[in-house]
Amino acid sequence: MRLKTIEWIGVNANQLIPGFIKMIDQTRLPTDLVYLETDQVEQVWEAIKVLRVRGAPAIGIAAAMGVAAVAQQVDTEDAAAIISRVDEVVEYLATSRPTAVNLFWALNRMKTVAHAAAELKAGELKEKLVVEAMTIRDEDAEMCRAIGHHGVTLLKDRQCILTHCNAGSLATAQYGTALAPIYVAREQGMHIRVFVDETRPLLQGARLTAWELMQEDIDVTLICDNMAAQVMREGRIDAVLVGADRIAANGDAANKIGTYGVALLARAHNIPFYVLAPHSTFDLSLDHGDKIPIEEREPVEVTEGFGRRTAPADVKVYAPAFDVTPAELISAIVCEKGILNPPYKENISRLLSV
Amino acid sequence: MRLKTIEWIGVNANQLIPGFIKMIDQTRLPTDLVYLETDQVEQVWEAIKVLRVRGAPAIGIAAAMGVAAVAQQVDTEDAAAIISRVDEVVEYLATSRPTAVNLFWALNRMKTVAHAAAELKAGELKEKLVVEAMTIRDEDAEMCRAIGHHGVTLLKDRQCILTHCNAGSLATAQYGTALAPIYVAREQGMHIRVFVDETRPLLQGARLTAWELMQEDIDVTLICDNMAAQVMREGRIDAVLVGADRIAANGDAANKIGTYGVALLARAHNIPFYVLAPHSTFDLSLDHGDKIPIEEREPVEVTEGFGRRTAPADVKVYAPAFDVTPAELISAIVCEKGILNPPYKENISRLLSV
Repeated sequence: MRLKTIEWIGVNANQLIPGFIKMIDQTRLPTDLVYLETDQVEQVWEAIKVLRVRGAPAIGIAAAMGVAAVAQQVDTEDAAAIISRVDEVVEYLATSRPTAVNLFWALNRMKTVAHAAAELKAGELKEKLVVEAMTIRDEDAEMCRAIGHHGVTLLKDRQCILTHCNAGSLATAQYGTALAPIYVAREQGMHIRVFVDETRPLLQGARLTAWELMQEDIDVTLICDNMAAQVMREGRIDAVLVGADRIAANGDAANKIGTYGVALLARAHNIPFYVLAPHSTFDLSLDHGDKIPIEEREPVEVTEGFGRRTAPADVKVYAPAFDVTPAELISAIVCEKGILNPPYKENISRLLSV
Repeated sequence: MRLKTIEWIGVNANQLIPGFIKMIDQTRLPTDLVYLETDQVEQVWEAIKVLRVRGAPAIGIAAAMGVAAVAQQVDTEDAAAIISRVDEVVEYLATSRPTAVNLFWALNRMKTVAHAAAELKAGELKEKLVVEAMTIRDEDAEMCRAIGHHGVTLLKDRQCILTHCNAGSLATAQYGTALAPIYVAREQGMHIRVFVDETRPLLQGARLTAWELMQEDIDVTLICDNMAAQVMREGRIDAVLVGADRIAANGDAANKIGTYGVALLARAHNIPFYVLAPHSTFDLSLDHGDKIPIEEREPVEVTEGFGRRTAPADVKVYAPAFDVTPAELISAIVCEKGILNPPYKENISRLLSV
């Protein structure tokens, strides 16, 4: 794995503090591989908002590192002042995007660590927050690797999968979720081929997944979203692998808009449809998927998404950024703890409580 | 109806010959309304090939007018020489695009008229060919109007339909096929709202259907192709109306890529799915849709469709331009002669023989 989607960089060798966040600016891919380096929380918020960093796990990591970056800048010996600033920043970063639950999960974890460390000295607290953000990142890489190892057991050598959007290395610390089994398969000497939907409006499939897989020399073919049904009908797809932004207690899974349609098409062609996500994606406070808040994005992403107007001025646009795939269309959910099969309500609650 | 997609213009008032073709250059919409004026067959071929004129019926009209334009230029008093040139041009224009059968139907009609008029004087033959091309155009407008009148009986006031690609005025002489019921409904005082898929890769929905409907003050909302399933799930769609490029004897219908997927989604949501097309779209020589030749387009339309690269250089692309919707997913086929219901094999053969 060559890609480093997001990292914490210490300014001085062997010291975490002072440090800054270094992340790939994913809005510039695939034509330019440019890194955003920042220790400013407003820049982190903007990067999440406009999808310079995206993918549920990567958003969580970026937000956690954003909290750590701000905390280190509080010029005080008073731990309480730092904790107070952490609380502010957590509130602020939570407003960047609404759907992916990992964002709130990571922010909450940073807040909890801060409050639990109220007795520490200011410098120790600052370092603890950086370490926590890096731990979230490292755990994510571990979880994705585990997801890959579980997921690969669902595939056979020479099979071809379809994926939607980007749930790869670029969406996580490393390996990705939906793409993790592809990378693990390759490590095991298997060859899995990939079709990827371009994923309008922001083209994460065309710009990011195709690019990421080509970096790793994996056989990838790009299609437009509306070609998926035909590709399935032609017998080219053995399984669909997608990520998730939030999974309800009953297994309903929110993911990038278009996922629900792909799930219906997979069902119509008797193709297994798998959702792959770490445990931080589950939101057991929601009985079912209808309660997941769905972000609506700006019309301009549809009408001028390619740097050029492609629709009439002032046309009405409806642009939900996510949809919810009902649990009954999901063949299995793969998380780092194992493979979840229906009935999901029981099996999710059992596996997550382990 | 304000739009004139394609016309024959006589250079001198009240005379058909000499004349030229005037068509909207649809590659320039929606930002620029520009007309292409030509009497050169190579330009007509190119216009069809690169979709300056597109839509199965409009392609047929353009090709027929192309034949007439060339015939008028043959500097001879010998009808046989003109007929020989017509034969050449018919062969040539038939190579422009493979899927829409109306192209071959219109070309064949021009050829038949030429051969049947071998006894005429050269000037009369030239005029006859122009008249035939204009007749194809006028008949198309009539057929589309009739399709609209039949189709509107399938709709109720205030309903909302989903359409894919452009099967409107811009795809025909006037009224369109899939959009004809919307225009007729408006003439009858009904209000039908429309959702339109943007229709990657060439965005005929975003660029053409949205524009065309806005010209006519019809309530239209643009979505990306991958949002159709979600819009259906939200209960916003009462019926799907699409055109066709070729319909086999059993009712299988080839249409713009993505149509088959929309048909599957409509079925999953119990939404009726209607195909609307003139009788020239039926190809009774084909038992079923698997025999319809499917055009594959250039990767660059996917990777650089908007003047900007949106995918990695050299990414592998699969880009079928059409798909085939199996008859069992089609609730009814509307042609100018009436509404066809299953079983299609019997009903198509009965209605078309009337």
